[in-house]
Amino acid sequence: MTADEIDRFLAETFPQARGWTRITAIREEELDLTLPFSEENLRPGGTVSGPALMALADTAMYYLLLAKLGPVALAVTTSLHINFLRRPPAADVMATARLLKLGAKLAVGDVLIRTADGGAIVAHASVTYALPPAT
Amino acid sequence: MTADEIDRFLAETFPQARGWTRITAIREEELDLTLPFSEENLRPGGTVSGPALMALADTAMYYLLLAKLGPVALAVTTSLHINFLRRPPAADVMATARLLKLGAKLAVGDVLIRTADGGAIVAHASVTYALPPAT
Amino acid sequence: MTADEIDRFLAETFPQARGWTRITAIREEELDLTLPFSEENLRPGGTVSGPALMALADTAMYYLLLAKLGPVALAVTTSLHINFLRRPPAADVMATARLLKLGAKLAVGDVLIRTADGGAIVAHASVTYALPPAT
Amino acid sequence: MTADEIDRFLAETFPQARGWTRITAIREEELDLTLPFSEENLRPGGTVSGPALMALADTAMYYLLLAKLGPVALAVTTSLHINFLRRPPAADVMATARLLKLGAKLAVGDVLIRTADGGAIVAHASVTYALPPAT
Repeated sequence: MTADEIDRFLAETFPQARGWTRITAIREEELDLTLPFSEENLRPGGTVSGPALMALADTAMYYLLLAKLGPVALAVTTSLHINFLRRPPAADVMATARLLKLGAKLAVGDVLIRTADGGAIVAHASVTYALPPAT
Repeated sequence: MTADEIDRFLAETFPQARGWTRITAIREEELDLTLPFSEENLRPGGTVSGPALMALADTAMYYLLLAKLGPVALAVTTSLHINFLRRPPAADVMATARLLKLGAKLAVGDVLIRTADGGAIVAHASVTYALPPAT
Repeated sequence: MTADEIDRFLAETFPQARGWTRITAIREEELDLTLPFSEENLRPGGTVSGPALMALADTAMYYLLLAKLGPVALAVTTSLHINFLRRPPAADVMATARLLKLGAKLAVGDVLIRTADGGAIVAHASVTYALPPAT
Repeated sequence: MTADEIDRFLAETFPQARGWTRITAIREEELDLTLPFSEENLRPGGTVSGPALMALADTAMYYLLLAKLGPVALAVTTSLHINFLRRPPAADVMATARLLKLGAKLAVGDVLIRTADGGAIVAHASVTYALPPAT
């Protein structure tokens, strides 16, 4: 699926997930997802909050699976591990999800989150999704 | 700190964090935090979303540290690992955070999330916080 | 399976795994596995090495699955997460594995490793096993 | 430090760690560590065991820190997370450790383990080390 197809799929199946992030690139085994700066995602000190970064990592991996597999609404996260590496600035951040394994039942990838200007690494996550039987 | 003191501390330092959860018990090395059912936290299929559960686990550990250490606004999460174990129902869920280590620089705990009626385990997380030097 | 049955099962299927640990208790959803002190498991500074503790956590979870399910030689670890919390002494350590989920395809548990005299927590792990279809 | 310097450092400080792996490349922020095939590292089914892969990931990160920082004998692993992705063949495997953060107190990296012929990804780990104050 392309970025537009993913957006239309979300509009039908999961409208509340739309809009807070933006797919900025899809490559063979990778997807870039940008989280625009917003007051809502901040924590004290003026930096992007940990939960916002966790949601971003999880979402980037989900969209990468949609891009690879087509509409699998029922893929569910089974585990997520994240290291927070540097305090993010009050600015856009970008997640790059990379597919490490796409099996019949499980998909595993990692997600590198940087400042959107291509600067320092802010966080690194590993995410596992369970795929529905029909896939 | 008591639940009321934690709430007042949040009101001063981090007002946007208030209100979405409720501390329901504080014991010696544990804290219970309830996430009331809300449309906002749902994902397709009508269950509490993964990001809501991750934020709940992170928050429960933060409040446990506040309860043990007093006001440490600058404690920051350095890593979080979560296994999603069962699809949560469309109902309240409750996280129980347990302290495993409280060192000078790092605090580590785990968080068990169940349906709030004391039923099935929904998720299990491990959370590490870095503590500021002054603590 | 009992501790003796597990040992006989290992003697047939995986003889090199025998002997370095000892099952000291099996309860409904838990299993205690002791790692006797040995020069081989040490790292500089005279403490039990990280890899020895990781192998202990993985093994404790495997034996708990054998105890619950009977002989499932082909259960394989799909992920393991461990926090090392305190420098272990040069002494026996004991792992307690606890089952959090036993599904058709996946089993998840956590493992608390203490000094064998019931003292301080040395490490805490989360372990996921994939179960073979026949189970 | 070069591969030879690391080996001499181990000979002095941690002789029992020598010999089971071989550093095959050191780049700016990465290190390749090969685990030669050996009967000792096998599990039933003739594949490299999970504990051998965990020890390999941990060791690759440790050697990368030695290569970057010089002799820091007292760096200790504080957490390790690993996903086992494919059953490894009965053959050499190679870990590539990559540095994601080198702070004053903590270093974080990830480790990709492949079959040594550059083939399929076998496992992926995230490793955190605590650095001693003097570094």
